[in-house]
Amino acid sequence: MKTVGEVGERALIAMFTDAARTGPGDVVIGSGDDAAVFVPTGPVVVSTDTAVAGRHFRFDWSSPRQIGARAVVQSAADIAAMGGVPTGVVVSIGCPPTTPVDRILELNAGIVAQTHAYGAKVLGGDLVSAAEVVLTVTSLGVLDGTAAVALSGARGGDVLAVSGPLGGPAGGLAALAAVEHGADRALLAEFSSLVDNHRLPQPDLAQGRIAALAGAHAMTDVSDGLVEELITMSAASHVRLDVESARIPQADGLDELGAALGVDPLRWTHGGGEEHELLASFSPPSVPDGWTVIGRVTAAAPGAWIDGAPVGEIRGWQSFTQA
Amino acid sequence: MKTVGEVGERALIAMFTDAARTGPGDVVIGSGDDAAVFVPTGPVVVSTDTAVAGRHFRFDWSSPRQIGARAVVQSAADIAAMGGVPTGVVVSIGCPPTTPVDRILELNAGIVAQTHAYGAKVLGGDLVSAAEVVLTVTSLGVLDGTAAVALSGARGGDVLAVSGPLGGPAGGLAALAAVEHGADRALLAEFSSLVDNHRLPQPDLAQGRIAALAGAHAMTDVSDGLVEELITMSAASHVRLDVESARIPQADGLDELGAALGVDPLRWTHGGGEEHELLASFSPPSVPDGWTVIGRVTAAAPGAWIDGAPVGEIRGWQSFTQA
Repeated sequence: MKTVGEVGERALIAMFTDAARTGPGDVVIGSGDDAAVFVPTGPVVVSTDTAVAGRHFRFDWSSPRQIGARAVVQSAADIAAMGGVPTGVVVSIGCPPTTPVDRILELNAGIVAQTHAYGAKVLGGDLVSAAEVVLTVTSLGVLDGTAAVALSGARGGDVLAVSGPLGGPAGGLAALAAVEHGADRALLAEFSSLVDNHRLPQPDLAQGRIAALAGAHAMTDVSDGLVEELITMSAASHVRLDVESARIPQADGLDELGAALGVDPLRWTHGGGEEHELLASFSPPSVPDGWTVIGRVTAAAPGAWIDGAPVGEIRGWQSFTQA
Repeated sequence: MKTVGEVGERALIAMFTDAARTGPGDVVIGSGDDAAVFVPTGPVVVSTDTAVAGRHFRFDWSSPRQIGARAVVQSAADIAAMGGVPTGVVVSIGCPPTTPVDRILELNAGIVAQTHAYGAKVLGGDLVSAAEVVLTVTSLGVLDGTAAVALSGARGGDVLAVSGPLGGPAGGLAALAAVEHGADRALLAEFSSLVDNHRLPQPDLAQGRIAALAGAHAMTDVSDGLVEELITMSAASHVRLDVESARIPQADGLDELGAALGVDPLRWTHGGGEEHELLASFSPPSVPDGWTVIGRVTAAAPGAWIDGAPVGEIRGWQSFTQA
């Protein structure tokens, strides 16, 4: 099997360019030139996210295709969290020259497939030599007539709602880690939906647009864990946020996995992260179908509260502090 | 001195956000939310570029501020090469937790200063833990009424021109390498302008816009070395490109450095790269002031020729093959 170093940058970029061209398109100039050109229909939303091997993903825990697709989900979730629709991505891949070419082509295939699944285009990218695999996806999107839904718009009297169940990816990750530390591998089969949820979260990002159209006041995606997102939104909006644990929708199987591992599943729903489900604040009558109300917004001193107590112990994931 | 790991991701991102806010702005929502929102005046140009410590730059050869600024130059040059004007960047920084905070803040200061020097904004970013310092800059720009200048538009009868002198960054790099291998350090003082040119290339990227307004048929920036760019443009435009070495403008001091190191300076002007000067094809009467004609375009079998011979030995820089 050939390595990236043997095949070379130019040949690989040409393969990426071919792969990118399999999608739908209104791109004027795409991959293969100095830059891509696209014609937006209005204000443009942009966000960038980096995932590093061994830290944000592991090749022995996920397939290259899942890893590539997940990087797109993570980046596109930030576009959805503004009420935008992803229209394009640019991708930078760093990898050691010894990396098998097939691994990088599969990674790219995951990026392309997930981008096309959103109706978006791979606009271009870069490929460089690095000590480890580093994936940076920059997503671009459009707002299509609604205002951007910022973090800062939550108001007293609003309710807080989430677009889907929480805790799945963190549960799946815990199962993988438990097996690595000696638990029976049968755990992975028993809780395969949670493990798959870690490998490739499947948030319904179309809910971002739906929330914006419904007049959401503030929105973010749950990337660092619910508690961290509550703290961030509370600080940005200068409001108090109160959540009731019992109302948080939980990924299927989380209680059973918690029992198997001797872990309180609230640790995963409160502090997990990387779900990329959306958390938004709405005026009560405007919560869209499919969203679950988990708490309320009060015009009071900023702070995040769960079950009547300020959040404390269960905190989310940060790249450095828990690395 | 504190490390990045001690200070943490959130505190650092807050510092980055403050630094980004020092610039000019028509950004609706910038750093600090899930994504940034900006209102383009027309078609949007986007390009991404990654630089890796030890490979694309060295902290013992350049200051963190120069390294940050250079990453912006490299990315913005791709926007200029389409005839665009950079309007914003998003930046991802990966670094080991043990990295001194000051180094990353200086790196960010270089990014912010160079972005503002282009009249553009730092729209957002990401900060992650990685084995080495990895910088990804994604630049966004606008075309302001002209069509994008693609690589594929060169036509028989055109002339080829460059926006500034070549070979400087490669010469500076050669001087740094020579000193590392035992040459007298005085070399660095004697050829400081070339060394500075490596540390922070200063292409006049406004020439990209000028070339587009003058009706350039094809354009790229010289990032991989003149010969590689000729090959790329020739293949994209299906034309033969002929360059005369004697017409290529050379960075000041390159002959003297070549004599001092026993290297033919054409190696640097032909194969250097990372100049980020622009190479464009124009109908002869429309070459703008400040550009230097170095060759011609013929409607013939694709190929790049220098001084009447097909390019061969002196090739440019690729991330993997020469790493």
